[in-house]
Amino acid sequence: MTKVTPRLLRGFRDYLPETMLTKQRMINSVSGVFESFGFGPLATPALEYADILLGKYGDEGDKLLYRFRDNGDRDVAMRYDLTVPLSRVVAMNSQLTKPFKRYQIAPVWRAEKPGRGRFREFLQCDIDIIGADDMMADAECLLVGASALRAIGVSNFVIRINNRKLLTALLKKYDIREGEPALSVLRTLDKLPKIGEAKTRALFASENGLSVTAIDGIFEFLNLDPDRLSDFFEGEETGARGAAELQTLLGLATEMGIRDVVDVDLSIARGLDYYTGTIYETFLTDVEGLGAVMSGGRYDELLDMFGKEPVPSVGISLGLDRLFSALVDSGRLNLEASPTKVLVTVFNEALRPQSFEVATQLRNAGIPTEIYPKVARMKKQLQYAHRRDVAHVVFLGTEEVRSGVAKIKNMASGEESTVALDAILSHLKPL
Amino acid sequence: MTKVTPRLLRGFRDYLPETMLTKQRMINSVSGVFESFGFGPLATPALEYADILLGKYGDEGDKLLYRFRDNGDRDVAMRYDLTVPLSRVVAMNSQLTKPFKRYQIAPVWRAEKPGRGRFREFLQCDIDIIGADDMMADAECLLVGASALRAIGVSNFVIRINNRKLLTALLKKYDIREGEPALSVLRTLDKLPKIGEAKTRALFASENGLSVTAIDGIFEFLNLDPDRLSDFFEGEETGARGAAELQTLLGLATEMGIRDVVDVDLSIARGLDYYTGTIYETFLTDVEGLGAVMSGGRYDELLDMFGKEPVPSVGISLGLDRLFSALVDSGRLNLEASPTKVLVTVFNEALRPQSFEVATQLRNAGIPTEIYPKVARMKKQLQYAHRRDVAHVVFLGTEEVRSGVAKIKNMASGEESTVALDAILSHLKPL
Repeated sequence: MTKVTPRLLRGFRDYLPETMLTKQRMINSVSGVFESFGFGPLATPALEYADILLGKYGDEGDKLLYRFRDNGDRDVAMRYDLTVPLSRVVAMNSQLTKPFKRYQIAPVWRAEKPGRGRFREFLQCDIDIIGADDMMADAECLLVGASALRAIGVSNFVIRINNRKLLTALLKKYDIREGEPALSVLRTLDKLPKIGEAKTRALFASENGLSVTAIDGIFEFLNLDPDRLSDFFEGEETGARGAAELQTLLGLATEMGIRDVVDVDLSIARGLDYYTGTIYETFLTDVEGLGAVMSGGRYDELLDMFGKEPVPSVGISLGLDRLFSALVDSGRLNLEASPTKVLVTVFNEALRPQSFEVATQLRNAGIPTEIYPKVARMKKQLQYAHRRDVAHVVFLGTEEVRSGVAKIKNMASGEESTVALDAILSHLKPL
Repeated sequence: MTKVTPRLLRGFRDYLPETMLTKQRMINSVSGVFESFGFGPLATPALEYADILLGKYGDEGDKLLYRFRDNGDRDVAMRYDLTVPLSRVVAMNSQLTKPFKRYQIAPVWRAEKPGRGRFREFLQCDIDIIGADDMMADAECLLVGASALRAIGVSNFVIRINNRKLLTALLKKYDIREGEPALSVLRTLDKLPKIGEAKTRALFASENGLSVTAIDGIFEFLNLDPDRLSDFFEGEETGARGAAELQTLLGLATEMGIRDVVDVDLSIARGLDYYTGTIYETFLTDVEGLGAVMSGGRYDELLDMFGKEPVPSVGISLGLDRLFSALVDSGRLNLEASPTKVLVTVFNEALRPQSFEVATQLRNAGIPTEIYPKVARMKKQLQYAHRRDVAHVVFLGTEEVRSGVAKIKNMASGEESTVALDAILSHLKPL
């Protein structure tokens, strides 16, 4: 057989058990929060017909798709987010009770330039409420998102909110056409926090061909006090609605007790095609330059793309990988080498059934327990236990079994106890 | 925007919340069992360089890969199983403590012809022990597999075992060359349970070009009493080792108390290239024609393919989707419409903060609780609760809140109770 060099594609990562154990617990916490709000899990395929995905993420998004011809010459692509597949599911399943609340925790793939916190495969944790036009749904997404972050130990964050209707009204005011021209302006705007006002102004002129009046108008808008938005858009229906929605959302955040983690930021644009109202972007307040860790918004017209009646919908998506990498980098995660708490040693083949029995008893009581998979020297078994961060080692040697006892070593303190065979569980359970 | 018809690729499926809720609980049970034996989770990318995967699954397997050129013109493929990516990880991470015990629960992709219980995307739940040459590791895989099946409520199963060394010795006896010719014979043998002896004999002649002597010899072997294997292979080293390994494994199954679910079946071949010893295939004894639901074996030379020293390894893989579809088909699963246990109604905007408060209190106590995301008519909120299989509905109307109480309706019995606001949790918690 040909020998190949083992290697990983750029932008992709392995999670070894010592990190994945912690990440898996974070995933379980997040799904627990989602279910506590009544969201049910959904699973969709990694592959979709390409035309299901195309045109939903703007021209730049289309280029980032992992798209290919499958063995049956079908034009297929790997999912780019979880929102478009959700919309497809809703379009195909008219029987679903509305509002339809689902969560999905699954990887997505984007052929982006890899960088800090930016991967080509990353896990999204999404909740969406489909068939809900009221701002209570937008507010619930805020609350669920904030609760999920807190559940995984993240407390220093701010959810910046904006409303796409405001941006739509603004661009209309300066005769910027809908579709790609408008989206392109929004994508330039998205760069503002990274590149600053001067460079953004320059891009508006060079990339988007905006007039000085339009550029000045955009920055006037960006510097508005949120309370003055209604005045700014007076008589302009879309802008006025956007302003009212934003105020309602802030009021609901107060009612829900999360106003302190919500901030209006009129520069939040989100360069995806499908947003129509509320937009969210969440940043850690104590980590610089990481980018948004939880984003989303309202998309009332996405189902229209599948030839169905528009269904008002809103959702938020937590990017667990970016968050996880930030927590790892800042040393804020406790990593464990293995899930194992107890190693039961094996002295010889004759005594082995006794070791099996004790191990089964401990496992049935919920204590992760290993047996070294070979009759090996005690030193080797202990060394293995040490390397795997095992807390307790049980010895069942000839002498012990004859006297109906076991020796139990606490690996942290080195302390050894002699315990009756039928008391091993009651000895270890409280530890 | 162009309108497209929402549709799903053949061989791929959506899992709607009412089924995914149950499937997710099964996944959690399986991973719980894996961790109870000390296996830690591993995550690897969906995409690998194609040459990492090519040549590991035989010619037929190579053809079933979802393989394409990515945007950087790299030759890539979606993972076909979890074993080869694991071997790549081990080859790249020499620092890992051996034996290295990991589990991975993740989808794999194969462009197979879809059929009953056969999908193009399906979830594999794998455990492997890397760097363990003793049959205790092979036996542990049996025990973990049996425990996982029992944890998800499957009791009618048999794990059929065989040893690739026996088959290797057998084919050598009849001068069938190693590599593709031998694998091709094994793949024909794999078809025996489905097509019967006569058709298998015919295929051995037509497809594999075997002589009558060879074909008779193979069937003589298949009908052997396992106790007579040592005699059959006397003086033939590989065969004798295979026979001894099989006997050792059976003895360990007895020690572990799982001999009753293990059966020797000399026709189990598994047409994958990389097996070198024990092979497992698990069947449900009360479902016909479903195929194997849990398979695996020992692969001592896989790491050799990455130019590394061979590392003795063994593993087993539970195919949860096939099992799940069989359980759904036979009506043996209790499906729930949503995770929600309680719906807290909202009467009007003024009373809404009170509803938010009660809902938060219930959630914090671990009770999944929803609020209808709109101030809607009571009838509508109740209808929603009914459709979502919600057990209890809490009413906080003007009268109730004024008197410091809530009304709680049991949706199954229709019974209504009036409970003090500060006693809602203690009323609902025991239910």
